Parts: sequence; C-alpha cells; structure tokens
Amino acid sequence: MIVAGCSRFGANIASILSAKGKDVVVLDSDNLAFRKLAPEYSGFTIQADATDIDALTKAGIAKADVVVAATNDDNTNIMIAEIASKLFNVSQVISRLYDTEKEIVYQDFDIQTIYPSRLSICEFEKLISTDLLEGLK
Amino acid sequence: MIVAGCSRFGANIASILSAKGKDVVVLDSDNLAFRKLAPEYSGFTIQADATDIDALTKAGIAKADVVVAATNDDNTNIMIAEIASKLFNVSQVISRLYDTEKEIVYQDFDIQTIYPSRLSICEFEKLISTDLLEGLK
Repeated sequence: MIVAGCSRFGANIASILSAKGKDVVVLDSDNLAFRKLAPEYSGFTIQADATDIDALTKAGIAKADVVVAATNDDNTNIMIAEIASKLFNVSQVISRLYDTEKEIVYQDFDIQTIYPSRLSICEFEKLISTDLLEGLK
Repeated sequence: MIVAGCSRFGANIASILSAKGKDVVVLDSDNLAFRKLAPEYSGFTIQADATDIDALTKAGIAKADVVVAATNDDNTNIMIAEIASKLFNVSQVISRLYDTEKEIVYQDFDIQTIYPSRLSICEFEKLISTDLLEGLK
C-alpha cells in the first residue's frame, strides 16, 4: 500500500496498516513529516513529491493494491488519485478531500473519497439530541 | 443555539439547524466568514471574537440550550467550550478538535467532542477491504 502524503491522517493510517503487517510505503516531500509515524512503523518512507511519477514508481505503485491520497491539499490529492487510477490501474484508490464541492471531479473515475467535513456534520447530527430537533417540528 | 466560529463546519451546522426552524446565532470575528452560511439561513450573525464573554452574552448564551465551538483553532474552541460549560452551565456543549492529543483537556468537564481526524480514520477502515486486512493475519 502506498500512502501519498504524511499528514496526520496519512501517518495514522500508515501506522495502523503497518501494525497489521501490511507492506506500506509513505511518500512526503518534507522529511520531518515522517516523525508523525508511530515509533513502531516498519514500512518504508520516501522523501519525494507524492505526485512525482518516478517516485511513485520507485514506491512500487505498479504493484500496489491500495493507494491513499492523504496530503493536506485537495488538488494534489486529486492528481495523485488520478495517476494511481488511470495510469497505474490501482484497484483501490482512496482520497481525502476537504472541499465537498470537488466531489464532482471524482464522479468520473473510480475513486473512494473521505470528506472530514461531511463526517463531522454527520457526527454533529448524531450528538445533537433528537428531542431538541423534534421539538421544533 | 450558538455557533461560535463560522468555519465551513460552523456555517453548515448553523444552516442545517436554522433550516429545521431552530433559533441560531453565529459569531465570527471575520464578517466575510458569514458568506459561508446558506442563502436561506434565517438566524442571527454577530461579528465578534467568539471567546468574548460580552459578545456571547449578547448572543444569548445564558439561555442557550446548545453551544458549538466551531472555530478552526483548537485552543479557541477549548476556551469557548469552557466558558459555555463552566460559566454559563449550557446543557449541551459540542466542540470540534483537530488534535486528538487534546482530548485529555475535555475529560475533566462535560463536553462532547468531534474529531475530524478520528472520523476520517474510521471511515478509512470501513473503506479498506476486509479481505485485504484479514489476508494479513
């Protein structure tokens, strides 16, 4: 599995999957970002731009079963997801996106998306007491 | 209900609750932030620092049933939540937090928290095929 972007999210999932015994390669252009990985992380790290096709090739994208686009920038994640899906036919491509308005970009190709803002709103709706909402109807 | 911070998250929940007929007041120090509210938002907006006790009083915190700390800054959200919970005994206080390491601050008092990063990881675990994980055991 390749995790493109060692954001807190990227570092967390890389650490979790590595702990489960999966081969993980994490790419980030900032070497310091790898500090977010768990101390027991046993995968590889590559200091490179996660949209760099040579770096992705070196990371083994041609044989990767999963690619996760986990940088903090939506446009970068879209580009990574597109490279993984279209150029390398990776079977499972997951991307985090902040801006729900960019969802339309993903509808054209086979990408799974994680929207933290949407998840937060769902969680809010779970927390808010139903009495409070129903009393208003 | 008071929403402190007109972030995308804050604006979304204010718009949702307002659409359900609830009285909502949103505070933000940046007047432009209110543009994120839905066009049909029918609540109030107050341009003020959301940690300003006078502004919160003006917003009606003494009678608020719910306060949501929704700025983009964890420390500000912690302060707002603390003011709402301890000074004004608001019955339901919900705060968004980015840094899960700050969770310990909330354990002392009665605050509900929303961690987008944790939610994203849960979502990732749902998306990642169980075969892929089970094959590793």
